[in-house]
Amino acid sequence: MKNTKGKFIIIAWLLILTSNSFSQQSIPIPTPAQLQWQNAELAALVCWDLHAHDGEFYVQSQARITPVEDYNIFNPQKYDTDQWIKTLKEAGFKIAILTVSHETGFFHHQSDATPYCMKALKWQDGKGDVLRDFKASCEKYGILPGVYIGTRWNAFYGVYDFKVNGNNQFAKNRQLHYNSMIEKVVEEIFSNYGDWAMVWFDGGAHGPEQGGPDVLSVFEKYQPNCLFYHNLQRADMRWGGSETGTVPYPSWGTFPYPSTGAGESAKEEIHANNFALLKHGDPNGSYYMPAMSDAPLRGHGGHDWFWEPEREHTIYPLENLVEMYYNSVGHNTTLILGVTPNPEGLFPEADASRLIEFGNEIERRFSNPIASTSGRGDIINLELPEMQTVNQVVIMEDIAHGERVREFILEGKTSDDWQEIFKGSCIGHKFIHRFNSTEITELRLKISESTGTPQIKGFNVYNIEK
Amino acid sequence: MKNTKGKFIIIAWLLILTSNSFSQQSIPIPTPAQLQWQNAELAALVCWDLHAHDGEFYVQSQARITPVEDYNIFNPQKYDTDQWIKTLKEAGFKIAILTVSHETGFFHHQSDATPYCMKALKWQDGKGDVLRDFKASCEKYGILPGVYIGTRWNAFYGVYDFKVNGNNQFAKNRQLHYNSMIEKVVEEIFSNYGDWAMVWFDGGAHGPEQGGPDVLSVFEKYQPNCLFYHNLQRADMRWGGSETGTVPYPSWGTFPYPSTGAGESAKEEIHANNFALLKHGDPNGSYYMPAMSDAPLRGHGGHDWFWEPEREHTIYPLENLVEMYYNSVGHNTTLILGVTPNPEGLFPEADASRLIEFGNEIERRFSNPIASTSGRGDIINLELPEMQTVNQVVIMEDIAHGERVREFILEGKTSDDWQEIFKGSCIGHKFIHRFNSTEITELRLKISESTGTPQIKGFNVYNIEK
Repeated sequence: MKNTKGKFIIIAWLLILTSNSFSQQSIPIPTPAQLQWQNAELAALVCWDLHAHDGEFYVQSQARITPVEDYNIFNPQKYDTDQWIKTLKEAGFKIAILTVSHETGFFHHQSDATPYCMKALKWQDGKGDVLRDFKASCEKYGILPGVYIGTRWNAFYGVYDFKVNGNNQFAKNRQLHYNSMIEKVVEEIFSNYGDWAMVWFDGGAHGPEQGGPDVLSVFEKYQPNCLFYHNLQRADMRWGGSETGTVPYPSWGTFPYPSTGAGESAKEEIHANNFALLKHGDPNGSYYMPAMSDAPLRGHGGHDWFWEPEREHTIYPLENLVEMYYNSVGHNTTLILGVTPNPEGLFPEADASRLIEFGNEIERRFSNPIASTSGRGDIINLELPEMQTVNQVVIMEDIAHGERVREFILEGKTSDDWQEIFKGSCIGHKFIHRFNSTEITELRLKISESTGTPQIKGFNVYNIEK
Repeated sequence: MKNTKGKFIIIAWLLILTSNSFSQQSIPIPTPAQLQWQNAELAALVCWDLHAHDGEFYVQSQARITPVEDYNIFNPQKYDTDQWIKTLKEAGFKIAILTVSHETGFFHHQSDATPYCMKALKWQDGKGDVLRDFKASCEKYGILPGVYIGTRWNAFYGVYDFKVNGNNQFAKNRQLHYNSMIEKVVEEIFSNYGDWAMVWFDGGAHGPEQGGPDVLSVFEKYQPNCLFYHNLQRADMRWGGSETGTVPYPSWGTFPYPSTGAGESAKEEIHANNFALLKHGDPNGSYYMPAMSDAPLRGHGGHDWFWEPEREHTIYPLENLVEMYYNSVGHNTTLILGVTPNPEGLFPEADASRLIEFGNEIERRFSNPIASTSGRGDIINLELPEMQTVNQVVIMEDIAHGERVREFILEGKTSDDWQEIFKGSCIGHKFIHRFNSTEITELRLKISESTGTPQIKGFNVYNIEK
């Protein structure tokens, strides 16, 4: 008798667990790291590499196949990672990601796995470590640190698009050596510098199944709570399909494949229509994988991820950055701006000023809502203190429970009646909408389609001077 | 009138200069550096490279196409270049040559041109410099320092037989980079470490005409008094055609080509008959370029230029080394013995002991002549204090004036009459001959053919216990 009762309890438990499990599977939810990432909203990709120090214009296609003549051109005399991170902090950025290596193959840390690292330099008597200093500054200013690692191109080792140049046994042995070197370097970066918020493999990371190093295992061993971007097996976010710092609306946080490069048919679908799938995502996708909107700060009449001389005129004007913000953060993605220290080792004055201007303008536009609310359910009302002019809303789902909203209508109550302001689909972490100034007394979010009960954690209305 | 007298004097001078010049051209003479080299007689090639530290058996063909997995295996805890050089000094060596790099591509000095150097190591906190320490020890013990530089094979950079692996533009750019790196490294070695007695480019140095770096110009700029071995344009000595530590008799110090790799027809002639031309030289050759007899000390049932575990049994027995001496130094060449420090950084006890045994034995055999003389002319007599048994002669030309002797007969005056002991051709710097013990009262060197008056600077007779 006792046994029967025990079995009954176990079966009951199993049913409960299974049902929970089903309900979790039915709508993908972000991991804590992804949640942190989306809450951050603004990230900076701090781009530095040897060629930024040569005083010449960078031509990527040439740089990829031309080793840097003299690595001791790296000799920044005013080097100050605090200046970088302090600037980003003041500008409202929450995450900073450093290119510990890019396509020259040079690693900006102290490595025992590749000699092509800071140990080779005269600078700081070979003891310099930009990665160490960068991370310390991030910790000092409360910025989440990320690291960007180049494995796909390595002009020094003779690696092109993941592959060691050549086809003979010599090349095969060098490929094995390169892969092993990368695994060890990645282990250094993941184990010697504490926790990282995100790691970004430049152009993805080929794994062993493609003849590349196994960086994912090393990552998972040392950085279980970090975001991984990306290889065939895993991508915790997806590229937003352009380097314009924007995505079109809607951009769902979910995706139908576990990674953006997974499998040949997926690849074809992903590349179709100018990366439409990357841009828009898929509300029915099984994987939580929000888009990122990336662009270099020096992208106005140029596309300079790395510092080059006499290129201040390519710094985006403030109004472009603001538009970028609306079309990235306002479209449920994280904006990643590329910022590049100059050869002296500082964010250039012009770039730093523009970042702070940008931060101030975002602050001005979003820190003073006229009214705010939150709530659960299909209809959320937001009453204004009085009839007044509004022209902007910010709506946020509590995405810890997944992106539940599928279709909604935003209405405003004018002196006449309820009037449709916007008919939309995705809200996700954040949906920002600007509209013509309208006098209203109340706003209403009507969610006409959803998966599970909508959880709106923020519904704010503004009247901003444009 | 004054003018005419002046012209006459100039013409007279020109005649004198021209005549001197003609007489110099008629028979090649060594440079001061070559003279020093031949006087040295015993040189050690100190062979060290990363693979000596991996505890595994070295397979050169594999090592050439396999980068070393972990360069931090270089971690010699008892490292002491004084021990190396002191051992060589005690063993009678006059020159020591260090492999600053060999085929792994790793450079054992502090370089600012290649990161694959001692700066990359944990050992000595990246401040180690074997080249520096080696040279300081040479100076301390009065040993002439030489440096051996590998440019032909570089497993790390992916260079095979001088060429960067691959054929595309990427490979071409890397070849240019490699060449430029080599020129800079060579400049460091030639300009940062003071004067060198000899430089040895591993397997020769391809020059720009073969798509390689221009190391000769750098050499000539910084080391005008040093011996150069070798490229297409220049060789101040020649390889003796085997790695047995011997050359057959005769081995003339002169050669018909300015370099051992010069031109295709020369190459063919040089390779013919198992390198006969390299072994024998050519008494009518226009270039002074003596042979060197090289062999690894660990060459007895092995051929280990580099330390490997459990290989003490390959150290040549004393009697083999003595035979080697007779067939190298005794045949007008410099003996170059390869000696290799172990991973702890010392000459192994067994190797060091054998070297000193060897030096002692050479000392025993050659330091006590029964009689000695010198002289100019076709006949040189050497009277003994009394009728006695002899069995060995050492004859030396004053090669500062060139190798003048072409044919000679060595005779001994027995109780009966003059008796032929040896009929020979080349004497050169040193000719050593052993013969059956014979009772004589006098020796006579009859030079039957020569170019210019023979200049015999040493004629010594011995009775040695064999």
